[in-house]
Amino acid sequence: MIILDGKKYRDQLLEQYKKTILEENLKIKLDIILIGDDPASLIYVKNKIKYAKMIGIETELHHLEEGTKENVVCDLIDKLNSDPSTTGIIIQSPTPLLDFEKLSERILPAKDVDGLVSANIINLYHNKESILPCTVKGILMLLKFYNIPLKGKNVTIIGRGDIVGKPLSLALANRGSTVTVCDEYTKNLSTHTKNADIIISAVGKKDLIKESMVSDGFVGIDVGITRVDNKIYGDFAFEETSKHASYITPVPGGIGPMTIALIMGNLIDMKRNENNG
Amino acid sequence: MIILDGKKYRDQLLEQYKKTILEENLKIKLDIILIGDDPASLIYVKNKIKYAKMIGIETELHHLEEGTKENVVCDLIDKLNSDPSTTGIIIQSPTPLLDFEKLSERILPAKDVDGLVSANIINLYHNKESILPCTVKGILMLLKFYNIPLKGKNVTIIGRGDIVGKPLSLALANRGSTVTVCDEYTKNLSTHTKNADIIISAVGKKDLIKESMVSDGFVGIDVGITRVDNKIYGDFAFEETSKHASYITPVPGGIGPMTIALIMGNLIDMKRNENNG
Repeated sequence: MIILDGKKYRDQLLEQYKKTILEENLKIKLDIILIGDDPASLIYVKNKIKYAKMIGIETELHHLEEGTKENVVCDLIDKLNSDPSTTGIIIQSPTPLLDFEKLSERILPAKDVDGLVSANIINLYHNKESILPCTVKGILMLLKFYNIPLKGKNVTIIGRGDIVGKPLSLALANRGSTVTVCDEYTKNLSTHTKNADIIISAVGKKDLIKESMVSDGFVGIDVGITRVDNKIYGDFAFEETSKHASYITPVPGGIGPMTIALIMGNLIDMKRNENNG
Repeated sequence: MIILDGKKYRDQLLEQYKKTILEENLKIKLDIILIGDDPASLIYVKNKIKYAKMIGIETELHHLEEGTKENVVCDLIDKLNSDPSTTGIIIQSPTPLLDFEKLSERILPAKDVDGLVSANIINLYHNKESILPCTVKGILMLLKFYNIPLKGKNVTIIGRGDIVGKPLSLALANRGSTVTVCDEYTKNLSTHTKNADIIISAVGKKDLIKESMVSDGFVGIDVGITRVDNKIYGDFAFEETSKHASYITPVPGGIGPMTIALIMGNLIDMKRNENNG
């Protein structure tokens, strides 16, 4: 069994990104819009700023208080859209009292770091990928780093959220995987997980995937996060399932770090596209 | 075994649509753009016009010769988009020498009878369905007509085309099905078809689905069309597979007629939306 070490690969990627930014003299700025004081959001934002700084990406945090009117946020987005010094924009989810999807959709597709704007999703749908959602790209890159093929493989995704499950199913289809997407209505989940070469779980339910549900040699990608007593758990019952895995991501240290790295990766791609007209 | 009789249901639907158009005094006009003289396209277009007329929908055929410049077609689409007498627009696929997807995308979402414009696909993706592709809607309505449930059912779709496979997988996901999409890279297709409550094949390969690939009681939806010696075949080896089916569509007489009916259904919905502002 080999651990898919997202933390190690993140560090390699960041090192490489730092070099690229320096060598190509890329002036990149990330603008983050945060509404309210959700403790988890504060940690996520702090993390993004930390890693951006580390590799030479400028950041600006627009911290608005809960209750800020929609038109004020929209005006800010419009300003950043037209500001040539802004390379990319992230609106930290959730946005209390405001419609996250509606706000997100206002971001210029070329500045959409999270890859969730309709224009970018449609490109993904039509297999003309532009900016991929960071977690999706992180998963694909981690699999590629460990030379795990996707074409013709049976991939079972559990969870069909807008951030991971749905766009991931399109991205894997584009790569020739045979994808099954399971949700809370799925009967006999274990039939689908046992039949899978690769199991990707993005639910957020501790011990959802048990030993009895996996086949020998499976690849496990754990995108779930559950906090219990200040400790973080994934969706896989790690100890019992990892014995049967050929490859598996740990939680923490698997996909989480990859997502952060790919925020930076997307920003570099976006800056290069901008420079190339 | 029950035959899913698309022809019979089409006739019922058309009867009902005719009544609605009369009672609600709906002035509906369908504009069809046809480029070139592909024999199959000519038949499809003739059929659409025939059924539209039958129920009181006005039609206008814009038959352009092969070699018509893109900007001429675009100008025509723009004119129809802004013409209040046009309820819906269909560009007959294929469009020789011209990019079908690009032309299609120019249609105003509210006049997009085929439901393939990005705005309509994005609504489907986000489970805020607006205009569904006619074949997709035809399949869903035929299943509903025969009271075949979708929630929690294992559905295996073979083929991931833009017209059927891809949008259908999103529509079924919206209805709580556990969807597997197979393509030409899928290994052991029969594992996926045997595991399915509902098998939907949209490939166009005669006898693709054989007796050994289905489980007793399966529901078969055949969207494939192959012509051999002037006879039409679906993807299912009908005689041998239908013995095991609980429900199955014939070819011809299954999904084909439903697609035609739902073109009319979409036009009525679009006219009503227009009337409601």
